[in-house]
Amino acid sequence: MKKLINSPEDVVSESVEGLVFAHESLLELHPSARVVMRRDRRREKVALISGGGSGHEPLHVGYVGYGMLDAACPGEIFTSPTPDQMYEAAKATDRGQGILFIVKNYTGDTMNFSIAVDLLTAEDYSVEQVVIADDVAVQDSLYTAGRRGVGGTVFAEKIVGAKAEEGASLEELKELCEKVSNDVRSMGVALTSPTVPASGKPTFEIATDEMEIGIGIHGEPGRERVKLRTAKEIVEVMAKAIVEDLPFVAGDQVAVMVNGMGGSPLIELYLVYRELKNYLDKIGIGISRSLVGNYITSLEMQGVSITLLRLDEELKRLWDAPVFTPALRWGM
Amino acid sequence: MKKLINSPEDVVSESVEGLVFAHESLLELHPSARVVMRRDRRREKVALISGGGSGHEPLHVGYVGYGMLDAACPGEIFTSPTPDQMYEAAKATDRGQGILFIVKNYTGDTMNFSIAVDLLTAEDYSVEQVVIADDVAVQDSLYTAGRRGVGGTVFAEKIVGAKAEEGASLEELKELCEKVSNDVRSMGVALTSPTVPASGKPTFEIATDEMEIGIGIHGEPGRERVKLRTAKEIVEVMAKAIVEDLPFVAGDQVAVMVNGMGGSPLIELYLVYRELKNYLDKIGIGISRSLVGNYITSLEMQGVSITLLRLDEELKRLWDAPVFTPALRWGM
Repeated sequence: MKKLINSPEDVVSESVEGLVFAHESLLELHPSARVVMRRDRRREKVALISGGGSGHEPLHVGYVGYGMLDAACPGEIFTSPTPDQMYEAAKATDRGQGILFIVKNYTGDTMNFSIAVDLLTAEDYSVEQVVIADDVAVQDSLYTAGRRGVGGTVFAEKIVGAKAEEGASLEELKELCEKVSNDVRSMGVALTSPTVPASGKPTFEIATDEMEIGIGIHGEPGRERVKLRTAKEIVEVMAKAIVEDLPFVAGDQVAVMVNGMGGSPLIELYLVYRELKNYLDKIGIGISRSLVGNYITSLEMQGVSITLLRLDEELKRLWDAPVFTPALRWGM
Repeated sequence: MKKLINSPEDVVSESVEGLVFAHESLLELHPSARVVMRRDRRREKVALISGGGSGHEPLHVGYVGYGMLDAACPGEIFTSPTPDQMYEAAKATDRGQGILFIVKNYTGDTMNFSIAVDLLTAEDYSVEQVVIADDVAVQDSLYTAGRRGVGGTVFAEKIVGAKAEEGASLEELKELCEKVSNDVRSMGVALTSPTVPASGKPTFEIATDEMEIGIGIHGEPGRERVKLRTAKEIVEVMAKAIVEDLPFVAGDQVAVMVNGMGGSPLIELYLVYRELKNYLDKIGIGISRSLVGNYITSLEMQGVSITLLRLDEELKRLWDAPVFTPALRWGM
């Protein structure tokens, strides 16, 4: 196992500490739970919280800050955080306006966030959750009932985060998050497997001439194992599956994300973006906003995912709103 | 060879096209040469230009924009751009205030930029160049006489870019760039080899329990091949070599970059940052600015480099100045 770490059991805590050190004017650690929080919590607003297994950085810890999350709860690698992390995150960031959990659809995450909702509701906190399930590749999966939650979560956190900053109510934010969730679709491919530090071995075996179409962000199986294809062919498979699912139609304006899985270099991601733009141009779908880079990863896995979100003027405005986090920053 | 590409010969042109598509309000391609330029060139300022082999993205094409470069000349993978690219870049971006080339110290780059300087000087353009040679690992190398130019180039482009935006003269910018070059040091390690698309094979062989200390960004040999070590041990080797070289001394304020080589996930880079901060804290060196992420890469190579720049108030101010490029963006 080739990793820049000290020991498998300390990877998450040491990396989270490094993140907070590197952005100490913006972030702080909760004193008793593994929770990354915005340092400035004076503002009266709905507390926006997410979390999930680690190994997908910058998701979620890198999206804590102005215009996105108030707190993130990182679990162990590819393992859900615990309800007490979510509970403590909520208590520490609640400003009396309520709490919204944004949850990726994995069995452990949905179960633990639901327990946290029950705990908080029992103490009269006002708390809601929205589950993101945007991966069109497969129905049900290794850790999921229904569809997996992947790149759409980045769009949800940005857009709902912007609206929360404007002072929207918990009900409005829940509705907006459900709208984003309804209108976003993703799919990914992998060329190599991630290696979970505690296991020390690749999660799956894959031949040197093969790729996995529809990969999950924990290396869960996708739709099919195929021989290597060109970027153009790969993009067409992914984009077609995404477009036909919603469906996106000619005339739609979309935000796209070409997301690296952690081990693929940027030169390849921009090449994939070119193929995606050419494909969407041909079918009359207009890219009006875009992200190209590593935004939701799977440790050192080589691969890429594509996410499309249908935009309207309100979503464009919220996407463009200022954001200041470790991983997304503009307008301020 | 596992890559998201169409064909080895088209990687660079297709990726550059994707970059310009993704940032089309900011960037444009030169109509006849492979040059990525700022779209808005109305402003009277010194033209700041860099370039080098591709495969190090976001360097340099991702640093074209407000507050950094006016143009970048991408060569083929790990191959210097040609003098005519630099010549055309200069002619297209010159606003009568002169041109500064920022050059990484590799034999092909220094030769070709010097030829471009001669061509432009012969046509009465006012042009200067500064060579960055910040890698403390080795003296001379596979493609280099003297030290290699690596991560310090990112700091130089940001800081000199900010000063150029303020309207500084060519002489002032050259002097500032030399100051940055004098006060910046870097070193890197690799766990795996990059694979150049045209070759299809890893550049070097490395055992599953080995790492290369002092790696170059083209996979050039470093100081030694050693057994895998912990992140803490690796950081101490790198940081000690860097600190003792300048030397940085107790009380210094520095900007640090923990840079991923392309295949290392962010969770590892933040862990490395933690080790670096702990090391520098112990010897009394204060981190006052930081970057953690993939800023100068070597295709899909797993590894990390560390760069330290000694700061004064002027450099801090220029570092903090607004920047708007594909890869660095803040303050606007």
